[in-house]
Amino acid sequence: MKFITYQDQAGKVRLGYLQDENTVVDVHEASGGSLPDNILSFLENSAENMRVLSGMTAGSEGTHSIKDISIKAPIPRPVSVRDFYAFEEHVKTARRNRGLDVVPEWYEMPVFYFTNHLAVKGDGDTIQRPAGCMWLDFELEIACVIGKEGRNISKEKADEYIFGYCIMNDWSARDLQREEMKVGLGPAKGKDFATSIGPYIVTKDELETYRDGDRYNLEMTAKVNGRELSKGNFKSIHYTFAEMIERASADVTLYPGEVIGSGTVGTGCILELGTDVHRWLEQGDTVELEITGLGKLRNEIREGGF
Amino acid sequence: MKFITYQDQAGKVRLGYLQDENTVVDVHEASGGSLPDNILSFLENSAENMRVLSGMTAGSEGTHSIKDISIKAPIPRPVSVRDFYAFEEHVKTARRNRGLDVVPEWYEMPVFYFTNHLAVKGDGDTIQRPAGCMWLDFELEIACVIGKEGRNISKEKADEYIFGYCIMNDWSARDLQREEMKVGLGPAKGKDFATSIGPYIVTKDELETYRDGDRYNLEMTAKVNGRELSKGNFKSIHYTFAEMIERASADVTLYPGEVIGSGTVGTGCILELGTDVHRWLEQGDTVELEITGLGKLRNEIREGGF
Repeated sequence: MKFITYQDQAGKVRLGYLQDENTVVDVHEASGGSLPDNILSFLENSAENMRVLSGMTAGSEGTHSIKDISIKAPIPRPVSVRDFYAFEEHVKTARRNRGLDVVPEWYEMPVFYFTNHLAVKGDGDTIQRPAGCMWLDFELEIACVIGKEGRNISKEKADEYIFGYCIMNDWSARDLQREEMKVGLGPAKGKDFATSIGPYIVTKDELETYRDGDRYNLEMTAKVNGRELSKGNFKSIHYTFAEMIERASADVTLYPGEVIGSGTVGTGCILELGTDVHRWLEQGDTVELEITGLGKLRNEIREGGF
Repeated sequence: MKFITYQDQAGKVRLGYLQDENTVVDVHEASGGSLPDNILSFLENSAENMRVLSGMTAGSEGTHSIKDISIKAPIPRPVSVRDFYAFEEHVKTARRNRGLDVVPEWYEMPVFYFTNHLAVKGDGDTIQRPAGCMWLDFELEIACVIGKEGRNISKEKADEYIFGYCIMNDWSARDLQREEMKVGLGPAKGKDFATSIGPYIVTKDELETYRDGDRYNLEMTAKVNGRELSKGNFKSIHYTFAEMIERASADVTLYPGEVIGSGTVGTGCILELGTDVHRWLEQGDTVELEITGLGKLRNEIREGGF
């Protein structure tokens, strides 16, 4: 199933799922009010809520044309956003461009940082370049959404805690990031102005058809103004989400509604490609990320457009 | 006023303020149900709620003996926690201990990272040393609590956005932190297992008596098992909270209920003091932080005690 969060014509923000590409079913309405009207409440009891939803007979109750609604980020305010650094090619190239090798610790454990979960954008939202930033970049990532509370989760059990997946664009102000990180913390201002997720959350069962061992064979591409710049595959990831969840939950409780980003796939940002391939992003640019099975996530850079 | 969050005898978590050191007034009960029963809702409309609360005549309605309640973190789940690195002495000493100078960028801007706002502890809560950590440390900090939404807040206006202050202990697993930070992100696992705040939030008006220009003259001490290890003063901070708020809110919306930590005061952790002054923390150790006007924040290290 594909879950979206949308704004209806009365301006209310609602939880829905896609019946087909033209039709949204409002989860709360279609269940006669028994299921939650927002994704965070739905995730808090996701197994039971999914059972109820699967048992419902499809009718016209709560259905809306996609034309009548406006799509929001599938989790407008995630409980948290961690971003990992799990694709080897990205790490190798990004380090090489700075004249550095990959540190041995990168191969010992998946490493992450917390980013600003209060600046999440959805498909179609505009992105504002921060003041003083001349080196605006995108990052092509995949994210998983936690659907069950847990602590000290082993990688063997981690899949139970994943509700679904979505595309993620970890917008990056490379000049601000470079400066602040010399101090040895972060990134923070280099990333805190926007993270896009969407367009929907795809429940994990829908990706089974793409399974390849403990990986998924999902093509990942990024286009800027229609020109394809990045092309990678989720199966090339070095650390699986199971390993990332094991790391994140070590001596820490994970809660439903937390989002975990994979880090950038190889070739998945301008920093890695080099500005001879494409200049930094500017006002009016459109960035479109696409991942097999997960749809397209499209944002335009616009001043004043947060 | 001193705001606490507490659990009553029925197990309900409530918002109160201290009438005196033995008496808690339940904000919701004392207002006849017109004011919120939790700190996050209170902060969302803090100016108006403070006006209502100040206008109330004190009575016995909603008063409870401190002996009948159990204190929690004053914000059990902050909207976010940013931690800065704003005391020069701490930065200098911590860098010198690693054979490094302070980078010039530290003097150009206050720098922070996001930590795990879902692992916040209160006064009296036990702290569990993470698995694999042998170098457990405390950090003596002061935090401010945001009480008003804002974006691109100038340092001149920043004080309007501060609701109050509290003590903060940014627990640190130095060995885990050292390893992961070689990868160039974070800290994350080095800090994500626990951050203590409390015992209460002191509204900013109560600190006016300690004002010294744009600083506050507040002595900050840390004791381990009753022995004073750290002694600093909040007035020695290089960047004020106003400057930190200006930085945090640049192209980012700050929301009520976000918490901003100052970073460690000079001498405020074992990393800085050296293990010849005190060994790393172990099971059974008690750490007590005290700051003038803000009370005492006490936690014990205990296995299985998260």
